[in-house]
Amino acid sequence: EVVSEAASRTIKLAVIPGDGIGPEVIAEAVKVLDAVTAHDNVTFEKTQFSLGAARFLETGDVLTAEDLAAIAAHDAILLGAVGGVPGDPRLKDANIERGLLLGLRFSLDHYVNLRPSILFPGVPSPLAAPGVIDFVVVREGTEGPYVGNGGAIRQGTPQEVANEVSVNTAFGVERVVRFAFGVAASRPRKQLTLVHKTNVLVFAGSLWQRTVNAVAAEFPEVSVDYLHVDAATIFMVAKPSRFDVVVTDNLFGDILTDLAAAISGGIGLAASGNINPEGRFPSMFEPVHGSAPDIAGKQLADPTAAILSVALLLDHLGLADAAARVSAAVTADIATRTNSHSLETAPRSTAAVGDAIVTLLTS
Amino acid sequence: EVVSEAASRTIKLAVIPGDGIGPEVIAEAVKVLDAVTAHDNVTFEKTQFSLGAARFLETGDVLTAEDLAAIAAHDAILLGAVGGVPGDPRLKDANIERGLLLGLRFSLDHYVNLRPSILFPGVPSPLAAPGVIDFVVVREGTEGPYVGNGGAIRQGTPQEVANEVSVNTAFGVERVVRFAFGVAASRPRKQLTLVHKTNVLVFAGSLWQRTVNAVAAEFPEVSVDYLHVDAATIFMVAKPSRFDVVVTDNLFGDILTDLAAAISGGIGLAASGNINPEGRFPSMFEPVHGSAPDIAGKQLADPTAAILSVALLLDHLGLADAAARVSAAVTADIATRTNSHSLETAPRSTAAVGDAIVTLLTS
Ligand SMILES: CC(C)[C@H](C(=O)O)[C@@H](O)C(=O)O
Ligand SMILES: CC(C)[C@H](C(=O)O)[C@@H](O)C(=O)O
Repeated sequence: EVVSEAASRTIKLAVIPGDGIGPEVIAEAVKVLDAVTAHDNVTFEKTQFSLGAARFLETGDVLTAEDLAAIAAHDAILLGAVGGVPGDPRLKDANIERGLLLGLRFSLDHYVNLRPSILFPGVPSPLAAPGVIDFVVVREGTEGPYVGNGGAIRQGTPQEVANEVSVNTAFGVERVVRFAFGVAASRPRKQLTLVHKTNVLVFAGSLWQRTVNAVAAEFPEVSVDYLHVDAATIFMVAKPSRFDVVVTDNLFGDILTDLAAAISGGIGLAASGNINPEGRFPSMFEPVHGSAPDIAGKQLADPTAAILSVALLLDHLGLADAAARVSAAVTADIATRTNSHSLETAPRSTAAVGDAIVTLLTS
Repeated sequence: EVVSEAASRTIKLAVIPGDGIGPEVIAEAVKVLDAVTAHDNVTFEKTQFSLGAARFLETGDVLTAEDLAAIAAHDAILLGAVGGVPGDPRLKDANIERGLLLGLRFSLDHYVNLRPSILFPGVPSPLAAPGVIDFVVVREGTEGPYVGNGGAIRQGTPQEVANEVSVNTAFGVERVVRFAFGVAASRPRKQLTLVHKTNVLVFAGSLWQRTVNAVAAEFPEVSVDYLHVDAATIFMVAKPSRFDVVVTDNLFGDILTDLAAAISGGIGLAASGNINPEGRFPSMFEPVHGSAPDIAGKQLADPTAAILSVALLLDHLGLADAAARVSAAVTADIATRTNSHSLETAPRSTAAVGDAIVTLLTS
């Protein structure tokens, strides 16, 4: 959805701070969002939603039909992080992440999970010779082994059988593959890599490979290759510069994007968009990191991933100029840091990082 | 199976050189096997099996019932690598790796896929600060998404649905988990990490987690923790020293062990054992790398992974002393190298590496 920035516009934003460090990083993200759009003809009308482990412990609800309907009435969603303290007995059977995060992704048809990986200048990588890291993983978001199509018989007995079904449809694969080709075509290198495990998962793999082959005909300018998921992890550490755009299924994308975040400075910097490209439902933007309850409330969390998620949000809303300004301010801020690659070792408080980025934006 | 090394003993070894660089690296592995056992009271009676892409192109067979019966009559198997030239149209529908490698693993009930990762002194890691890397992944080998339980309807139409089923049984999970605890108990650190994705694959994940909890009671000396597979990839590059023994399913194990090989010097050094611990079927030892047809026949391949697979083979056969001598010779040889971390850049010929290790063994 592209709009002229001259037109006056109100954007209804659902804000889900969530648990742990979520509220802290979201406070900074909202600060940056307000600052960058202060002089644009755009107003963000924010509604805060109290969802996550804290809400579950209070009310017993993870995501009600009312929550979902209210959120769906917004133009976009900004989410911090959800999930309680690991091992909390009261959360034993709750699975907040699945119920809430996957609940939103599936209900709002977020079939594109967009996860850019950029090694910003000055950021230490765990790799000795990282080279240029600048790629995007387009992870499918509504199919694969994430569909919840599992079951067990004879649970708790020596005869238990527990199955999990990965469901892949031509409809679902084609739309995400076409989106990925679009992303590749818009980038200078125009290179798309399908990652799968076609030699073992032969039916799903065949569907993915045939779909990529078919859609490739519409994008003759994009060069295409293929890697098995195991080999892809080798390239991630041995030669990440080989990647431009990766398209892959929900589970492989989950695994690869954590690895991609790790090599490009850690999950403290990794942003993501859960996108419904047609805009039938609001898209959702969130840092890749979790709620890190151990460091919550101490102003220790790095809000950069949440702030970069704001850049993705602005871009998605057609506010490309504001998005670029956020990215530039983050890049400038990162260049001033000495040790910024982990959530735990942020040398400045969460708010100080947000303030610094706002200063860079407005100066 | 533990035997006194004093007893005279004949071991029937099935040798499957395979395709590409397979025959070259196996020649060196056999050279080392013969040298290290020359003065022991043990004789390896070798039968060579012609299996792989070359055989398929000649006869149309991947693995016949006769092949399988003949191989099963041996005490152990040494395999090089199988697989033809990628994109060879004659192999389009063959899937040699799946038919042969998985055919052997499943038919011979190789439920333990043992993959040690050691960063040998002198070997460059792609990680800036690898620390001590010395862990073992115990990958399940006969279940999970590898069972071939997939299917598709309406193939080739816009209504196609392609499913893949991960099958996990209490029987299958428990035996591999118990083996992994045994490995952990035998190591100085005695630390076992279950890797899975219990928050999404809730049925399979629950079975794995409950099984680990239950078997842990038998091994009070082993400390146990858990990582989601995505988080495990982060630790692999950020802090691989945290791992001692990892137990995981077939697919997660496939992915993690390629990553583990990459951080510890590359797949040119990664050995593996496909083990049937009870000895009902012969176990199979093979380098993790593939057949690399592009460099085949040129004496460019590093045979170290195949030679380290011989060490695993000897260990499995109860010849621990010979196994240790092979490992020591490989370690000494690696220490002399300047650039040994990739199959393609081995500065010596394949045979020269084998010869050097034999010299170290016999001097
Ligand atoms: C929390 C979990 C359900 C989620 C996922 O697996 O998708 C997370 O790992 C992510 O990548 O956003
Ligand atoms: C070739 C392939 C079928 C095999 C696997 O996926 O197990 C390989 O990647 C391995 O790890 O041995």
